[in-house]
This record gives sequence, C-alpha cells and structure tokens, in this order.
Amino acid sequence: MRILVILLIIPLCGISCSRSTDDFQPDTIVALERGALDRWGKGDPQGFFEIMASDQTYFDPMTAKRIDGQDALKKYIAPFTGKIHIDKVEMIDPKVQRTGDLAVLTFNLVDYGTQVDAGPKTTARWNSTEVYQRVNGTWKIVHSHWSYVKPVLREGAAN
Amino acid sequence: MRILVILLIIPLCGISCSRSTDDFQPDTIVALERGALDRWGKGDPQGFFEIMASDQTYFDPMTAKRIDGQDALKKYIAPFTGKIHIDKVEMIDPKVQRTGDLAVLTFNLVDYGTQVDAGPKTTARWNSTEVYQRVNGTWKIVHSHWSYVKPVLREGAAN
Repeated sequence: MRILVILLIIPLCGISCSRSTDDFQPDTIVALERGALDRWGKGDPQGFFEIMASDQTYFDPMTAKRIDGQDALKKYIAPFTGKIHIDKVEMIDPKVQRTGDLAVLTFNLVDYGTQVDAGPKTTARWNSTEVYQRVNGTWKIVHSHWSYVKPVLREGAAN
Repeated sequence: MRILVILLIIPLCGISCSRSTDDFQPDTIVALERGALDRWGKGDPQGFFEIMASDQTYFDPMTAKRIDGQDALKKYIAPFTGKIHIDKVEMIDPKVQRTGDLAVLTFNLVDYGTQVDAGPKTTARWNSTEVYQRVNGTWKIVHSHWSYVKPVLREGAAN
C-alpha cells in the first residue's frame, strides 16, 4: 500500500513540476523569427519554410483571401525565391503573449532598402503577427498576418 | 490509508477529466466575434470593449505602431462611437486554431455600406486575426490585427 501511495504521488508531482519549471523564454520565439527574417532578406524563404506548421494560415497585403496550409503557402511564397533583397531589417518592440503551447509574437518591422528584382529600393513598414505553437518541444508558426503600416490608398480605390 | 489513496486519486482524475471532457466549441469564439461586429456596425464599440483582455495588443491600418493594453486601446477606439454605420457584415470562412486556453480566429470580412459620419457609403474588405484567451472559463481578446485586402496604394507613396 505504501508503494501504491508513492506511485500515485509521483505522477501528481510530475504534472505540477512540469508546469512550474516550464523554462519558456520569449527570446526563443523572437530569435526564430529574426533568423527567418534575415534569410528572407537575402532572398531565401527556406528559413520560414523550416518553421511552418502543416496547418499554417496566412494573410499579407497581396493575398485575396486567407491562405490555408503549408502546401498552399509554399506555392505562394516560392516564386519570391532570390527576388527580394533587403539591406537592413529592424524589428521594433517585439512582444510575446504566451499561454501554454501557443505564443503570439507581435512587432512592427522596417525593411530598409527593399529591392524586388532589379527595381528601385524602398523602405517598407509592417505590422506583424506571428502565432507559434509548440509541438514536441519545437515551436512552429501556425498563423502569420503581415500588413502595411498606415497605407496611403489611391483616391477612389476600393480596398 | 485507504482514504489517503482515494484522496490522491481524485485530483489525478480531476486533471485528466477536465482535459478529456473539454467541450470547446469553435462556434463559441465565432459567435463572440459576430456579436461584437454587429454592435460595431451600429456605431457601438461596447461589444468589443466587453470582450477585451487587460493586456490586449492591436494593429489596424490607421495605427502608427502596435497599441498595447486595454486602456490605450479604449482611448483609440472610443472616438468612433456613433460614427460608423455598416449596412451588412459578411464574415468569410471563419477558422479557429485552438491549443488549450488560446484560440486564433481568422477570417476575411466584407463590410457593405460602410459610412463614417455622413460620408459616402463604401465597401471595405478586411483580413482579420483575433486571438482569444480563456481565463476562468471566459474568452477574451488578447490580440487583434485588422488590415485591408489588397490595398491599392497611391503611386510613389511610401507605406
């Protein structure tokens, strides 16, 4: 009976300990994003491909509607391979709101010297939402939302 | 000793049962959002105020940078009270990605007949991300990201 009691105590402790000693660091998420962004700025989308979840959903200013799933998203992004070059990426005030295995990373982003193909260099300013999910200890992006900061619309244009 | 064993079994069961019988319905989240949107379309932001978490973060096409916290967000939204009227709101293909107590609701939205003050009526198309967190059984918005679908930018305008 004493052994039974001990066996019952162990799992109880196991649950509470794994919760209380969860050594989550928000910087883990920020570093993943910075790594993918740096590669993106060199024309390499593979950094994002490596941290996509299979069921990722996605919005950006060029999407006509939400893109659902890794396969569709890879098809959408792959044509940009080698076409985008960004001189300097500035991530402003990243914030991580985490509950359990889901973490919402938000930040403003400034891409200085963005060049698409051989076009003129521009500065692009973004609102950025990246939702990460932890599965088997690894964080993957399950939702992305990219939009322009205060876009100046053409007069009379319906959005 | 038998009593002690039973006392130890009960909390174990409590944990596993609450997990396995979690009767989460994605429609709960969709209904909260529809309710707040309907009120917003009648010029009443209170529907959103009632489901904001204290630490909500927020982006929309008019924000210069992310807005952090309920107080700042209420100050930003309150001036729209009574000024916006929308004839019909269409939520397209809402999807809920939920892990534990965090749920990501995404959808495209069409606001038909949007009128600001006495201005002309327009149709506005949105990409929408709403992240909800469940605290003490109640779902509240912890992050919102609103952006235009395929905005047509003024030529030469930096965004």
